[in-house]
Amino acid sequence: MSADAERSALAWLSRAAEPGHAALYALVREVGAPMTVDLLLAGQAPPSAQAAVGARVAENRVDADLAMAERCGIRFVTPADDEWPEVVLQPMTVATECGVPELAPPLALWVRGPARLDEVTCRSVAVIGSRAATAYGEHVAAEFAFGVVERGWTVVSGGALGIDGAAHRAALAAGGITLAVLAGGLDRPYPAAHGALFERIAVAGLLVSEWPPGCAPYRRRFLIRNRLIAGLSAGTVVVEAAARSGTASTARRCRELGRPVMAVPGPVTSAASVGTHELLRADGGDAARLVCSAEQVLQEVGRLGADLAAPARGRPEPRDDLGPVATAVLDAVPVRRAAPPERIAVAAGVPVLDVVRVLPGLELRELVELTADGWRLSRAQRSPTGR
Amino acid sequence: MSADAERSALAWLSRAAEPGHAALYALVREVGAPMTVDLLLAGQAPPSAQAAVGARVAENRVDADLAMAERCGIRFVTPADDEWPEVVLQPMTVATECGVPELAPPLALWVRGPARLDEVTCRSVAVIGSRAATAYGEHVAAEFAFGVVERGWTVVSGGALGIDGAAHRAALAAGGITLAVLAGGLDRPYPAAHGALFERIAVAGLLVSEWPPGCAPYRRRFLIRNRLIAGLSAGTVVVEAAARSGTASTARRCRELGRPVMAVPGPVTSAASVGTHELLRADGGDAARLVCSAEQVLQEVGRLGADLAAPARGRPEPRDDLGPVATAVLDAVPVRRAAPPERIAVAAGVPVLDVVRVLPGLELRELVELTADGWRLSRAQRSPTGR
Repeated sequence: MSADAERSALAWLSRAAEPGHAALYALVREVGAPMTVDLLLAGQAPPSAQAAVGARVAENRVDADLAMAERCGIRFVTPADDEWPEVVLQPMTVATECGVPELAPPLALWVRGPARLDEVTCRSVAVIGSRAATAYGEHVAAEFAFGVVERGWTVVSGGALGIDGAAHRAALAAGGITLAVLAGGLDRPYPAAHGALFERIAVAGLLVSEWPPGCAPYRRRFLIRNRLIAGLSAGTVVVEAAARSGTASTARRCRELGRPVMAVPGPVTSAASVGTHELLRADGGDAARLVCSAEQVLQEVGRLGADLAAPARGRPEPRDDLGPVATAVLDAVPVRRAAPPERIAVAAGVPVLDVVRVLPGLELRELVELTADGWRLSRAQRSPTGR
Repeated sequence: MSADAERSALAWLSRAAEPGHAALYALVREVGAPMTVDLLLAGQAPPSAQAAVGARVAENRVDADLAMAERCGIRFVTPADDEWPEVVLQPMTVATECGVPELAPPLALWVRGPARLDEVTCRSVAVIGSRAATAYGEHVAAEFAFGVVERGWTVVSGGALGIDGAAHRAALAAGGITLAVLAGGLDRPYPAAHGALFERIAVAGLLVSEWPPGCAPYRRRFLIRNRLIAGLSAGTVVVEAAARSGTASTARRCRELGRPVMAVPGPVTSAASVGTHELLRADGGDAARLVCSAEQVLQEVGRLGADLAAPARGRPEPRDDLGPVATAVLDAVPVRRAAPPERIAVAAGVPVLDVVRVLPGLELRELVELTADGWRLSRAQRSPTGR
């Protein structure tokens, strides 16, 4: 099967089906994209996958979509491409297979901007919140985004008015990289008022969408998009959110991925902080972590959670205070040839979700490093004094 | 031994020793107050208790103190008096005996105001915070205090400028009862700017101190006083607090008593909320509970904590969703003759701390009621359909 056939098939699917469809994802994974398209065209796919396409099966706009994308400076990135963010998306795959169909990974992505998708997402934090933000919320979003990119991390957000816009702008102002995950075609900036902002992001960062050019940002697409904001970042910070807002769905997806959900408190007299306080008051393990600064955000994202024991006494070594899971994972990380979390999980004998949860913390301690192929020991650990 | 001798001895001790001294408390409990005074005067008390008195052993101002108190409308309340808040102070006794000497209960109290100390403290919440409060903090303190007294609860605080003052004033404005726990003689209003406020509290609520008239509010007395704010309330809400402030000590004492510590968030840009955010970010079980309203405060104070199971299905009965500890405690509460938590603990076979933790929640469900002698089943539970 040619690379072109694979690519065309994925482009066809990108228009034919709404993304995030677990049955379709499973079929593509099983028989490949070209065969999936053949089955759908013949009406012979399993009913659950066939349902994902419906009447759109009659449409073929692959060439037009790819041509349009090229005209707009948009590239179509598939799992076959070097920059496909395989490692960062791993928890989505695992979660889908573990019974959270809403977290089905993207089949391919439409991308615009100079940055490499895999590189900018391997150290990224989502900063999201209300469109009806207050001056306080926008100020805090900007401060956090500034602090995050200052420390070399990427700011992911949804390109909306309010908190999202403030986060993107501050990341750009700090000379950092920001990634806007949109809910429609990248040639159709939405909201229109952010047209100029998206142009600046396309110059210095990345615009990303699961929908081909021309697709309108329908209401339900925002919910589908929200899972990808959580999927493309190591943790999510909610700055301001009204009661029962859309940001709660992103926070839930983030939690389901085993990644930290953080929330910024505000005045209890402010309606714009009701949703963040709800997240902070959630019962038991579901509660978001309260964060007051970018530093605290990065602490959280690099946290080993329950796995991090109390600080050791005596000369501290980066390995000293690791819990049993982190130690098992670290021992299983290859010395030179990087491995994906799935392989490390097998070697360590721990669940993949634990592996992806623990690795960022090991990276913050400079014990491991992330490459395009996965994780390996850091240079310091590979030296004679290391291992 | 006459009641007068007991009373005089406690008044002598009140001036001779700083309150909250565990060794002195233990000696009084063992041999009684008059014998304790005799031993101290003879220099024959155990060294740890003798140290509590030091050079003050030569001083005898019992008559002068009691006369001065009478002139100022201050009464001297001892454990022999009907209004002594035995049940509310129980967790202090238990904690002291369990190895937290800083929580030694008061030997006696100087009180001014029309309310009965035991009655106003059996349903009370402490609302405390920074002297350097913001307009936001004072507004929230007032809202919370207002909501708390509206629901029939007492507001306890420390009479300080800022949050404390706002809480006291709002409780009075709502026609409720408020209790100011001061760190010096009740005839010496401190801060002086709150002289008029204290007069109003003395008319409608209660001023309480462990120090006899004339005693100056020394710096270290505020820390000793803080434990009593926690001791005289069912839970503590911190509204605003700077980093590493005195309110943190009250919060710690409250936690050590097994009572809920709550904190109100604020803008992360406000220095006055740094301390409350620290409380909310504390690790594991030590974290304060975030509260946004008086309603949430009372939910927390009446909470059964881990003991409260998921809501039952079908016709809900107040007993239905009780956990094993709450059920054991409820079964051990006497039908008619009220019993103190210690006796209930023996009957239920659970630790006293668990009993005092669980009883307020049972009261909120109207399963039990608190009398001057302790707890008994509520009227509804005593009826034929109950037990």
